Amino acid sequence: MKIESVDFFYLSMPVVTDAGDGSQDALVVRLRAGGIEAWGECEASPLTSIASFVCPMSHGACRPVGASVLGEDVSTPADIARIAATIQWNSMDLLQAAHTWSGVEIALWDLLGKKRGEPVYKLLGYQRAYPKTPYASQLFGDTAQQTLEFCRAAREAGYRAVKCGWGPFGRGSVKNDADHLVSAREGIGPEGILLIDAGQIWGEDVAAAEARLPILEQVRATWLEEPFNGSAYEAYGALAKRPSSVKLAGGEAAHNIHMARHTIDIGKVGYIQIDCGRIGGIGPAKQVADYAVGKGVTYVNHTFTSHLALCASIQPFAGLPDHRICEYPVKPQPMAWEMCKTHIAPDANGDVRVPEEPGLGMEIDRAAMKKYLVDAEITVGGKILYRTPSLD
Amino acid sequence: MKIESVDFFYLSMPVVTDAGDGSQDALVVRLRAGGIEAWGECEASPLTSIASFVCPMSHGACRPVGASVLGEDVSTPADIARIAATIQWNSMDLLQAAHTWSGVEIALWDLLGKKRGEPVYKLLGYQRAYPKTPYASQLFGDTAQQTLEFCRAAREAGYRAVKCGWGPFGRGSVKNDADHLVSAREGIGPEGILLIDAGQIWGEDVAAAEARLPILEQVRATWLEEPFNGSAYEAYGALAKRPSSVKLAGGEAAHNIHMARHTIDIGKVGYIQIDCGRIGGIGPAKQVADYAVGKGVTYVNHTFTSHLALCASIQPFAGLPDHRICEYPVKPQPMAWEMCKTHIAPDANGDVRVPEEPGLGMEIDRAAMKKYLVDAEITVGGKILYRTPSLD
Repeated sequence: MKIESVDFFYLSMPVVTDAGDGSQDALVVRLRAGGIEAWGECEASPLTSIASFVCPMSHGACRPVGASVLGEDVSTPADIARIAATIQWNSMDLLQAAHTWSGVEIALWDLLGKKRGEPVYKLLGYQRAYPKTPYASQLFGDTAQQTLEFCRAAREAGYRAVKCGWGPFGRGSVKNDADHLVSAREGIGPEGILLIDAGQIWGEDVAAAEARLPILEQVRATWLEEPFNGSAYEAYGALAKRPSSVKLAGGEAAHNIHMARHTIDIGKVGYIQIDCGRIGGIGPAKQVADYAVGKGVTYVNHTFTSHLALCASIQPFAGLPDHRICEYPVKPQPMAWEMCKTHIAPDANGDVRVPEEPGLGMEIDRAAMKKYLVDAEITVGGKILYRTPSLD
Repeated sequence: MKIESVDFFYLSMPVVTDAGDGSQDALVVRLRAGGIEAWGECEASPLTSIASFVCPMSHGACRPVGASVLGEDVSTPADIARIAATIQWNSMDLLQAAHTWSGVEIALWDLLGKKRGEPVYKLLGYQRAYPKTPYASQLFGDTAQQTLEFCRAAREAGYRAVKCGWGPFGRGSVKNDADHLVSAREGIGPEGILLIDAGQIWGEDVAAAEARLPILEQVRATWLEEPFNGSAYEAYGALAKRPSSVKLAGGEAAHNIHMARHTIDIGKVGYIQIDCGRIGGIGPAKQVADYAVGKGVTYVNHTFTSHLALCASIQPFAGLPDHRICEYPVKPQPMAWEMCKTHIAPDANGDVRVPEEPGLGMEIDRAAMKKYLVDAEITVGGKILYRTPSLD
């Protein structure tokens, strides 16, 4: 199948705030080949990613992403890997390329699956998709009391695992963090899986993170996520050396498999968190999952946007029964929820599974997308390089 | 001084080819504050970088670069570092941000230098600027005979150091590479400093690189540059373990100081090559230079564009007398040459020095820039976010 078109749709809530909520806008990719329409999504700045797809070439190693994609022939997973390698080479000096390509790569897996009548996880070599335990991914409250209420609400909504992150955590005293952590444990109950996300708050300051370990152990947190800058592997490794029941989690910033491997090998995380919409799509994410299995590290998806992105992000570890926890956006903005007709809802046990339909198995809601579609236009040298395409 | 405006100028040759020649286009930054006009340059895809400066916010950790810059107060180097830290936080999920910010950061140093009447290297803490030995940075010929001629020409032009890179090197047999290497040595003469750039050709294949070590030693190459992907630190480290007179060089892809440190600590390079237009500007580059000194590694600039970029890239190691080799674009495209009135020309000894004038000491040629200025416009939701500004 020859890739005939790749169209980017920039969706956004009417008002975007500075909250740490990644579901306020989205960059959706529609790819057409061989009479099939396939979909993907970048976890990235929409306008910047569109620009990197259509920009004029700067030189041989700084070509637009589109130049390596349009017109290419795709029949097998190996073809997807071949295009990925071409982009790595041709867009070596185009930093945004990995984020942009991610959404296109996801759409290519959707395409192959639809063509073959198989779900993506089977194309990845898995025999079946196992249930995942979704964790409610939410922000800390402004006060410990609010954190308690948020966590209690998540428990009452049926979540057996809850992640609290960002907000005031790490910004004030150890005592203040302790108050929030104790409240979080109280809110989710003694049996709940408690996950804590520091959102890179300590930069490279290992001592600051260490100071929180005793209380994290006391409240039986399963992991401490992103204590440091995403590339500060040595800081991760230094903290991981401390004997502790709390494992480290990280990797969402990885925009290539090297970064993910370094997070595992040098950072010594217990959980590697990969966003398919950033790392270059489903193919490299599956490579990280394989690598994690070999190293005894647990793979977890990173997802804070739509169910299309969620579905893509679960595929790489869908067939790993012991890699059980799954990030699940609890309260996505209406835009991120409505853009898909299909949703990955928890079953009676509270577990989620990827669809068994061909490809990603996600049906897009064009009418809903139109409500949130942002008109954009990019002109260079009098030539229109991008104009929001029609959804019809 | 309050940052009043940051304007991006996208310059380009009329025709851009897929040659590995980074001087075919440029993204120049003009910054105005306190009645002073300052200049910087990004080594990056112009359109993509402009988009990342003006794009709408996606969420709190994916804000446009411009939002953290405009209106900020800058009086000291610490202010520049403060804005850099803000961008690292506010644009954590905007991949292109480092490349975009780099040009702005360079302009901020130019601003501070002009305000204080001092060259940038003095603001960095150096007492004086030492001469550097420029190496002619050029491509391998298509044939070994052509490589011989290119190298002979560089020698005759007065260069004591020559770097050959890319082209056919590493793409064919070891024998073919050997022919080129022997020709290169013959061309530059027995006394010349010979540098070889593999341009990431071997990905992570250590054995392929190892197979070239004997001939590299035989022709007395000083360094082998970028044998592997810029993030494949382990491959670098494995090759560096081999006892050899040939040191490894790398680091140009570093878009933060972590990557540069990993290239040194894990990759065990002998030469760390930093592009100020990518790593986040002059400040982080100076931190890498300090780190390299402590580790016994030699700092080298990476520059393949204009003399404005060259001048910026030399500042971080201007005061290090023993870090002597300096990348020097031999045949930049007319656009890259003409955009500056000031040029960093070799003296009678063939050495180059940064100007002693305040700031970067580089005078821009507006009339020349106008010849190459590319008209671009970006509109989102009916609002013009970018339109090529006036150079007047």
